[in-house]
Amino acid sequence: MSTRLHHLISLAQLDRACITRLLDRAERMRDASLHGTRKLDLLHGRTVLNLFFEPSTRTRTSFELAARRLGADVVNFDIARSSTNKGETLLDTLHTLEAMHLDAIIVRHRETGTPEFMVRHAMSGVSVINAGDGNHAHPTQGLLDALTIRQHRPDFNNLTVTICGDIRHSRVARSDIHAFTALGVRELRLCGPESLLPEPDDVPQGHFTEDFDAAVEGADVIIMLRLQKERMAATLLPDESAYFERFGLNSERLKRAAPGCLVMHPGPINRGIEIAPDVADGAQSRILEQVGNGVFVRMAVLAEVLGR
Amino acid sequence: MSTRLHHLISLAQLDRACITRLLDRAERMRDASLHGTRKLDLLHGRTVLNLFFEPSTRTRTSFELAARRLGADVVNFDIARSSTNKGETLLDTLHTLEAMHLDAIIVRHRETGTPEFMVRHAMSGVSVINAGDGNHAHPTQGLLDALTIRQHRPDFNNLTVTICGDIRHSRVARSDIHAFTALGVRELRLCGPESLLPEPDDVPQGHFTEDFDAAVEGADVIIMLRLQKERMAATLLPDESAYFERFGLNSERLKRAAPGCLVMHPGPINRGIEIAPDVADGAQSRILEQVGNGVFVRMAVLAEVLGR
Amino acid sequence: MSTRLHHLISLAQLDRACITRLLDRAERMRDASLHGTRKLDLLHGRTVLNLFFEPSTRTRTSFELAARRLGADVVNFDIARSSTNKGETLLDTLHTLEAMHLDAIIVRHRETGTPEFMVRHAMSGVSVINAGDGNHAHPTQGLLDALTIRQHRPDFNNLTVTICGDIRHSRVARSDIHAFTALGVRELRLCGPESLLPEPDDVPQGHFTEDFDAAVEGADVIIMLRLQKERMAATLLPDESAYFERFGLNSERLKRAAPGCLVMHPGPINRGIEIAPDVADGAQSRILEQVGNGVFVRMAVLAEVLGR
Repeated sequence: MSTRLHHLISLAQLDRACITRLLDRAERMRDASLHGTRKLDLLHGRTVLNLFFEPSTRTRTSFELAARRLGADVVNFDIARSSTNKGETLLDTLHTLEAMHLDAIIVRHRETGTPEFMVRHAMSGVSVINAGDGNHAHPTQGLLDALTIRQHRPDFNNLTVTICGDIRHSRVARSDIHAFTALGVRELRLCGPESLLPEPDDVPQGHFTEDFDAAVEGADVIIMLRLQKERMAATLLPDESAYFERFGLNSERLKRAAPGCLVMHPGPINRGIEIAPDVADGAQSRILEQVGNGVFVRMAVLAEVLGR
Repeated sequence: MSTRLHHLISLAQLDRACITRLLDRAERMRDASLHGTRKLDLLHGRTVLNLFFEPSTRTRTSFELAARRLGADVVNFDIARSSTNKGETLLDTLHTLEAMHLDAIIVRHRETGTPEFMVRHAMSGVSVINAGDGNHAHPTQGLLDALTIRQHRPDFNNLTVTICGDIRHSRVARSDIHAFTALGVRELRLCGPESLLPEPDDVPQGHFTEDFDAAVEGADVIIMLRLQKERMAATLLPDESAYFERFGLNSERLKRAAPGCLVMHPGPINRGIEIAPDVADGAQSRILEQVGNGVFVRMAVLAEVLGR
Repeated sequence: MSTRLHHLISLAQLDRACITRLLDRAERMRDASLHGTRKLDLLHGRTVLNLFFEPSTRTRTSFELAARRLGADVVNFDIARSSTNKGETLLDTLHTLEAMHLDAIIVRHRETGTPEFMVRHAMSGVSVINAGDGNHAHPTQGLLDALTIRQHRPDFNNLTVTICGDIRHSRVARSDIHAFTALGVRELRLCGPESLLPEPDDVPQGHFTEDFDAAVEGADVIIMLRLQKERMAATLLPDESAYFERFGLNSERLKRAAPGCLVMHPGPINRGIEIAPDVADGAQSRILEQVGNGVFVRMAVLAEVLGR
């Protein structure tokens, strides 16, 4: 049995046993919730701080709900208006927060490596949980995607997963790839315009392609990424409808996939840009299940890093 | 006995029995509070989300206090900074929030019909509570105004109520009118500059007038509405002091009303525009009682829609 | 034994017994925390409201943590977006909040005297706690500084304390001076550029000097204040490095102080402007202890004013 995690920065170092333990725990959280136990007492007296340098109401709310359902207190540190803007360094902010005797800091930051930097420089026993850093990692998203897939397709060894969109700049894709690889996925297909595909060395686990039809063929899971409007130019495609034509998931294309192929998206979705509305809302869409699993996975992570 | 409400969108469909039940419940909440029971455990484990598309610290705080005093967890979803600004549709925001297993969403929106729209499209059992939509409805304000009146004048059948100001654009006035009519008010007088009075078909229950002196004559309750500065032009009055002259409530005018006439205002007040400072702060003013009752009414509504 | 406080506006009127009682209580809070009792139930059912007219994430968070650890509910009233901006007066805001049955209001305001004004006009039993007003007072900072010193140097009668920086505009300095004087400090040295020193009548307790080397000589405690960038011009020094040269605390200068002299700063620090990084992070620095003590002092103050 692998040792208990004290931080969660990336899934890159986590083995199959560890990821499986977290997913099992998230499933027990979901079962308890479905049986009416909405609130647990596991983290009573613990304090969790949301430190979001990038605004993200969805992820922040998901973490906040997760922490509250475990009985923890949650404080939102509104960094946009804090003294960090007055020139305080990240390190001084970190040490100040630590000195207030917090148990966990959930951090999102535009720059890759910020959570890792915080772990290296933390002076107390505070746990750091990465809620997304630069293009690097978004580990709870990777876990919630793995959980959503596992509910429907428990055998990763027989699974073909296609991820499509701006993989080069996507921390979601990187964490997904780590999770699915650790769980033994059979085949990973990474699809997008050439300029939005990562360097091969950066992501050695996948098969790269610009041909979305081929990438969809026989896939058991398709994960569509959000296209950031400002990346449009890099695609060499004239406009969003041309992007949708080549890389959007519509119902016609979905027929090429394996029967019952799961359709996923980290949200928020751009309807008609990367995904057709009828597919996003269709019977194969697992997008809202992902949101629900997000809360359970974050409960599992908080219980893991803060558990006694 | 009328059935339990699952949502609260408007008072238009609520009958006397239902409104009375909510007011009775609010009164029990107030009694418990006055006897030292500040915190109840009724909604322990339940989660309430504030979804305010229009800023309103007062109403949001009132709902937040109400939910906390019932033991619920409260999450503020700061929509101004959320992904809705990145182009996510209202429906996608709604479904995302539902997927996080919330129990109630308290919504305020500039557009009439948004809470109703959310009820129609909600996929889970989440309760929707309208905290004000466009010119349409502000049901908890209608209830708290009714509660405030009932404490002092329990017999609505003998009551003359005057509402003065921008009735055309006021969701407060509409919800007041529904509440007072359901409770059997004898006479409703609606007063304001012609351009700020509603179409008669829109509000069939009231007597319209531009003569404030006549509207005050013998009234048992006077509710002054806040004048939105941007509506000034539509009044055809040259400036705020001219408005105050014709439609402001001063102590001289108040003498025309019935003895002990209640003076009310939903706040925040514009001193010297719609109401004289000495009247706002005077012995007949119930403005702060309204604020206090706001918390108790919102507790009653939350207990009603979330109660088991 | 002095009577229990109902408000905390300034330390000017508090005698030694009262300050000692608050510090003792803060120490018991710290002991309980160190022995694993993170959460007390003392203020269960009480509601504390943060009313910050000036943004200050650090102090607000510290108060929020303190209140939560005592079991109180905390509501943040986001004044920047509230109806106060729509022209509501401070008094109307105060009375509206009181009407919601809050137990304590923690207020920060740019203008000197705002908390005092609120106490004078409060109509209910609400407690007002000053979290900083203008240049006037920041009483919990004075208490936490006294607590930090007392842990290391319990005998104030043998203590020389130096405060350096913009003392003229510093509410921190004023509250420190009141606390240390009440506790019987032997010598208080106030140092800074002449234009940033207060009028002698304003602060009669201290010895004024522009010679920082002399002020450091033999000091047991040195408190460095944050230089507001906009005050730079008033110093008659050409730039920040010239300021640091004359009034910055570096390790060379620190050697003139008494052995083991405590180095303190209210934060956030300007590295290289008022304090050298190696001193801020050095063995004699008590800056992070101050932050930790801030939570315990605020717990003590809340327990004092809200205790039954």
